[in-house]
Order: sequence, then structure tokens, then C-alpha cells
Amino acid sequence: MDEPAMLTRIDHVGIACHNLAEKIEYYRLVFGLSVVSQETSTEQGVREAMLRVADGPAGSSYVQLLEPLHPDTPVGKFLARRGEGLHHVGYGVTDITAALAAIGGHAVRLIDERPRHGSMGASIAFLHPADVGGVLTELVQAP
Amino acid sequence: MDEPAMLTRIDHVGIACHNLAEKIEYYRLVFGLSVVSQETSTEQGVREAMLRVADGPAGSSYVQLLEPLHPDTPVGKFLARRGEGLHHVGYGVTDITAALAAIGGHAVRLIDERPRHGSMGASIAFLHPADVGGVLTELVQAP
Repeated sequence: MDEPAMLTRIDHVGIACHNLAEKIEYYRLVFGLSVVSQETSTEQGVREAMLRVADGPAGSSYVQLLEPLHPDTPVGKFLARRGEGLHHVGYGVTDITAALAAIGGHAVRLIDERPRHGSMGASIAFLHPADVGGVLTELVQAP
Repeated sequence: MDEPAMLTRIDHVGIACHNLAEKIEYYRLVFGLSVVSQETSTEQGVREAMLRVADGPAGSSYVQLLEPLHPDTPVGKFLARRGEGLHHVGYGVTDITAALAAIGGHAVRLIDERPRHGSMGASIAFLHPADVGGVLTELVQAP
């Protein structure tokens, strides 16, 4: 498993916030971005919105706004520790299973050994930030 | 100045690191990314590399790796405070002067009132993170 994982695009930047509705309105007003999807994930403990920035040949790019459902969730703890701000980056891949196998072969710990359901029907998996230079990194295979 | 600034793409994610050469090699090996430009900015106090992730109709998207030239620089202070990780996000715009005027009209403080020279010949400007929900946000007009 020495082949690198091929990234097709920056799928999204994930941004942690205290108030999703306020932040959606801010991004609409200041940057002209619109919500294309809004979901609640009790598994992840977040309410989230995807705001489309651009479309590309390999798929779209989004700002993903994340509000924790409770303080005792990953995003809730992030807010308590660091305050609002950049939380993670998601890269597009064409074959997430192959990408995870390749990345795991480079001694990068996988938070998700197998892909799971993410926003907008995508298959996603997170890599451990301690093994990616402090960056919480997500792989996204669009549906 | 009520028109929202139109973002054309996620131009890059900026990632702060201690050792640029090591991190370039890591991203090559694990994610298959290649350096398309490497620059030193004494004005910004960084050595940086742009690694292309994807090409799109509005321009390319990059991972930007940043190593501080000295501890007493913005990126050096960031590393001391938070460690390695996501530092900022850069969005593409078609007209950075118009975008800055529009954004400034929404009471968002501009770190750069006027565009200045950025990576790879681009015109760039930073917005104050305190006014963008904790996210250090950069606008990028490709040359």
C-alpha cells in the first residue's frame, strides 16, 4: 500500500460556531454564500449547514458550518478549548476505501477505519490530526 | 456597498508547520500532492509552499504549507500558541478591490485595506478573524 491517496478537490472547510443560524446569515450577507443542505447528526453531535462556494469538474466546494448539539461533543469541546474557528478540512477522493487503505499504509491512524455516512449522502472518514500535522483531515467521496 | 462579495472557489487552506521540507514530503507521500511554487516572504515572515490539489474553472486549489522564519512572526506565534494545524482559509475572488469594499461595508475589519502581493503573483488581502467567526480569512485574486 505505497500509492498515495489521490485528492480530487478541497471539498470543504469545516468551521465550528456557537450559533448556526447567525453564522449562516453572516456568510450570506458578507460572502454571498447560500445553504444547499442542513442536517442534524446525533452520531456526530452537530447541527450543520453546507454553503456552496463553487462547482468544479470533480464536484463542489463548500463552507461547512458546525454547531454542537451539546458541550460534551467533539465540536463542543473544540469550542470550549479554542473558540470559534477552523475545525477541519475535507478533501474529495474518488474511491474512499482505496484512499483509506493507502493512507493507513503510511502509518496514519484512521479515526474511521471504514467509511461512514456524511453530509449530503457522501461517504466520509476522518484521519487522526496527530498524524496529519495537527490538521483534522476528512476524506469525502461524493454519492 | 450591500452586494455580497462573490467567492469563486476555495483557493487554499493555509497550514502552519515547524518544518516545511518534512511536511512537503509528507503530503507528497501520503496524499500525492506536488509543490508548484515555493517562496520566502520576509514581509510575512514565512517560508511557504503551494501544493496543487485540483484545477477548476475559476482557478486551482492548493494546500499552502507555512513555516515561520522566526518565532516572532504571526505564524511563529500561532505555532507557539496552538501548535501545528489549520491557520487560515483563502477564497478566490474575481475583483479583490470590489470584494474588499463590499466586505468592509459590512463592518468586517480588514487587515489589509488594500490588496498586496501574495503567493504566485496573486493579489491578496486578509480579513480580521475576530469579525469572521474566529476564521482568519484571505481573499485571493489570481494574476
